[in-house]
Amino acid sequence: MKLATLADGSRDGRLIVVRRDNAVYTDAADIAPCLQAALDDWDAAEPRLRERFEALQSGAIAGEPVDVAKLLAPLPRAYEWIDGSAYLNHVRLVRKARNAEPPATLETDPLVYQGGSGTFLAPTQSIPLGDPSWGLDFEGEVAVVLGDTPMFTKAEDAGRYVRLVMICNDVSCRGLIPPELAKGFGFFTSKPSTAWAPFACTPDELGGAWQGTRVHLPLLVHHNGERVGWAEAGPEMHFGFGDLVQHICRTRAFTAGTILGSGTVSNEDQQHGISCLAEQRMIEIIEHGEASTPFMKPGDTVRIEMLDSDGHSLFGAIDQKVVAV
Amino acid sequence: MKLATLADGSRDGRLIVVRRDNAVYTDAADIAPCLQAALDDWDAAEPRLRERFEALQSGAIAGEPVDVAKLLAPLPRAYEWIDGSAYLNHVRLVRKARNAEPPATLETDPLVYQGGSGTFLAPTQSIPLGDPSWGLDFEGEVAVVLGDTPMFTKAEDAGRYVRLVMICNDVSCRGLIPPELAKGFGFFTSKPSTAWAPFACTPDELGGAWQGTRVHLPLLVHHNGERVGWAEAGPEMHFGFGDLVQHICRTRAFTAGTILGSGTVSNEDQQHGISCLAEQRMIEIIEHGEASTPFMKPGDTVRIEMLDSDGHSLFGAIDQKVVAV
Repeated sequence: MKLATLADGSRDGRLIVVRRDNAVYTDAADIAPCLQAALDDWDAAEPRLRERFEALQSGAIAGEPVDVAKLLAPLPRAYEWIDGSAYLNHVRLVRKARNAEPPATLETDPLVYQGGSGTFLAPTQSIPLGDPSWGLDFEGEVAVVLGDTPMFTKAEDAGRYVRLVMICNDVSCRGLIPPELAKGFGFFTSKPSTAWAPFACTPDELGGAWQGTRVHLPLLVHHNGERVGWAEAGPEMHFGFGDLVQHICRTRAFTAGTILGSGTVSNEDQQHGISCLAEQRMIEIIEHGEASTPFMKPGDTVRIEMLDSDGHSLFGAIDQKVVAV
Repeated sequence: MKLATLADGSRDGRLIVVRRDNAVYTDAADIAPCLQAALDDWDAAEPRLRERFEALQSGAIAGEPVDVAKLLAPLPRAYEWIDGSAYLNHVRLVRKARNAEPPATLETDPLVYQGGSGTFLAPTQSIPLGDPSWGLDFEGEVAVVLGDTPMFTKAEDAGRYVRLVMICNDVSCRGLIPPELAKGFGFFTSKPSTAWAPFACTPDELGGAWQGTRVHLPLLVHHNGERVGWAEAGPEMHFGFGDLVQHICRTRAFTAGTILGSGTVSNEDQQHGISCLAEQRMIEIIEHGEASTPFMKPGDTVRIEMLDSDGHSLFGAIDQKVVAV
């Protein structure tokens, strides 16, 4: 099933169920007022939400037309947003771009950072840019929403805690990353609010594309109206979400609604394009000695979505414009 | 006023108002079901909560006796937990301990990291330790809870967004920090769940001790029953909470209920003792060539509280035991 969050003036929005074709929705606030509430009480809420979804799907409920401009992120704020960097090609390229070595444990020890989770951007919300020198970049990623996940959870048991799959634009300020990392405390100010595609899908909605806790579909990225990326999200995700769950559960537990991201989807074969500008710029530097693609500036647009094997948009599109603030 | 959270089987607990002497409480769930709900609607909730507090204080409401063992962290989970490191003496000592240089911008650019905020420990909850080699340490800190705080907020305006003051034990695994930081993505697995003292105070509750967005009181720390620290939290907090707010608001906004920490309270004058074992160990290394104080092991206890100038415990005590898991 597909779930989404309607803007209703409240902080966490109103839970709705969305038809598989993304065209029509029906209210679900009587089952749980918002998505976090559904995740908090998933065992009770899930069968009722599925029943509502099936009724919408079959036409037993007519529903209302979806207007993506009225949707918030599925979780407008979350208790944790933990982002991995599981596509090693991305790690190698961006470290090269900032003259940093990949860690020695790159292939054995997952990279994850704790992201800010209190103020997510809606799918079509503008990206506020305070200063063009910050080097604003998009990063197209896949993510999962976890249920309550105990400390010490193992990779092979992790799948059972995956409630939903989503995609995001993990906005980054490339110009702020090196000075921030030099302080040794992580990315903090170099990671503004992340934006989310409108529809969250249960893993079964992905059919055979959900395999080995990875999403085996290409991520379609447009920058200023031009298709720049269609990287396969499955095969080169070196650490699956199961591996990432095992890693984060080493020293603590996680509450329902915790979001765990894949890191920027990236393929070694350059024919698949890019899911962030930093990779494009690094390829240019390698090929021509200097980067010709600038980072995002006010007026730039980015569109990120994922099509299933029939060409249907699974999560709907992130469709954002950069605005100066 | 003082607020706290009663365990009632729900995820976020039940909001209560606590008398100034910490002995008696009265229910406030009719005003807001939990503390996050009060923070989400602070302008409406605050005057009603104050009225309830005054009635409890005057004896117009008799109240029930407080049993700290039945209290959760004031916010059992929060949308963000951002921790600074504003006591430069602490930064210098712990970096020395791991043979790392303090950043060049130590005195001008605040250090903050994004912490995990989904599964906080209650004031008297045990600290689970998976492996003694992790080098378990306590860290006594002061923190503030923010209301909705816009991007670009300046230090001089930050005070108006401070809703509550709290203290915490920001548990750390010293043995996991160097390999985690070497990967360049922050502290992740080296920071298990943080524990919080039972009572959250509005800044006015601190009287003259709340000055310049700093708490001018000593933080009392006991390890295994022995008083090991009474560091002054005010004068050596190089960056006040206002400065930290300005720093974090550089590239994004924050939702109500965001928690912002001071970092380990630390004084240059060793007569004030320590608020974490890493400092004690570093002092031993400097004086004797090696550390004699081990990190925490199963059975160890830590108690952290803050007394006002009359010797009353402002936030109640964090009182935890380490258990092997």
